[in-house]
Amino acid sequence: MKILVIGGTGTLGSAVVREFADDHEVITAGKTHGDFQVDITDESSVRALFKNAGKVDAIIATTGSLHFGPLTEMTAEQFNIGLQDKLLGQVRIALIGQSFLNERGSITLTSGIIADEPIRQGANATTVNAAVEGFVQGAAIELPRGIRINVVSPTVVEESLKAYGSFFPGFEAAPAARVAKAYRRSVEGAQTGRVYKVW
Amino acid sequence: MKILVIGGTGTLGSAVVREFADDHEVITAGKTHGDFQVDITDESSVRALFKNAGKVDAIIATTGSLHFGPLTEMTAEQFNIGLQDKLLGQVRIALIGQSFLNERGSITLTSGIIADEPIRQGANATTVNAAVEGFVQGAAIELPRGIRINVVSPTVVEESLKAYGSFFPGFEAAPAARVAKAYRRSVEGAQTGRVYKVW
Repeated sequence: MKILVIGGTGTLGSAVVREFADDHEVITAGKTHGDFQVDITDESSVRALFKNAGKVDAIIATTGSLHFGPLTEMTAEQFNIGLQDKLLGQVRIALIGQSFLNERGSITLTSGIIADEPIRQGANATTVNAAVEGFVQGAAIELPRGIRINVVSPTVVEESLKAYGSFFPGFEAAPAARVAKAYRRSVEGAQTGRVYKVW
Repeated sequence: MKILVIGGTGTLGSAVVREFADDHEVITAGKTHGDFQVDITDESSVRALFKNAGKVDAIIATTGSLHFGPLTEMTAEQFNIGLQDKLLGQVRIALIGQSFLNERGSITLTSGIIADEPIRQGANATTVNAAVEGFVQGAAIELPRGIRINVVSPTVVEESLKAYGSFFPGFEAAPAARVAKAYRRSVEGAQTGRVYKVW
């Protein structure tokens, strides 16, 4: 299969690339690195990525920014960062990408444990991750040509504990390589509309 | 209690107003009708509403637009309608409104059955409704001064069946007056972070 991993140069994305590299053709896209550069908040940038990458069998998105901060000081403008970046960015990848998928292709997005287990300063993250999971369940029943869509919800990844660990008191971390296996379940499996939780 | 119902002139909102009218002071806000006019997509309009309405004991939002249409033709720009209107509109009401609530006050938002039961042309609605529920669960653990937040998820309301019934094949409708009781559970009850499903 030809697999496009958007965010494939990040901590989780590079583990996903390694998971597939031995037995599939993997193309990576990132903000500044990778085979292609893309800004997921920009319609024409995402269109250009798919035109340049050509038809693929699987699209994986492991990217998107959120706003973290105390709820009592949060503004709608700050909240909109997560809506425009991680949420609408991943939705845009799916909406545009559906036309560039071969028959029976798949889309795999990324949410996160905070969708189900809220943390302090995480209201935007809980909202956006729940929304990505909602989108996948809504989109799954409408995608044509046998195209499937799933989402992986990872716990905090071990490789990010130094940076984010203090936000996740008592959470069990998972190595990025373990989380990456869920993307294989999505890409090579037969299910659609699923949330694969790796906790 | 002094209760502000934003969207209080709509089908569901006016049933909510009737539910509380006998034993509470109810203020309504709507786009064009009600005691106050407000555009929930406009930061300064929402701020002005709360300044004019003064301190309240409960904020209820029963409003917000979504985009309905086939997934295969949907653009990110169309998808953003629901994110900016129903989702960020209700979030904005909560973020600004928290400062205008008396101690132990409450916020009650509105999602919908499509959060859990996707329908054709409803990917935006499933996403936004799931997101509103996520926000409520994320915000509940951070709100100060005993302030609570919940969300009501109604099935299609009987009064809207003529307009929307064909989107909901086989769904059981509920009269708006029955859905309105869930808002009373939220306002007068003691729970927080809850999704009250009226199906």
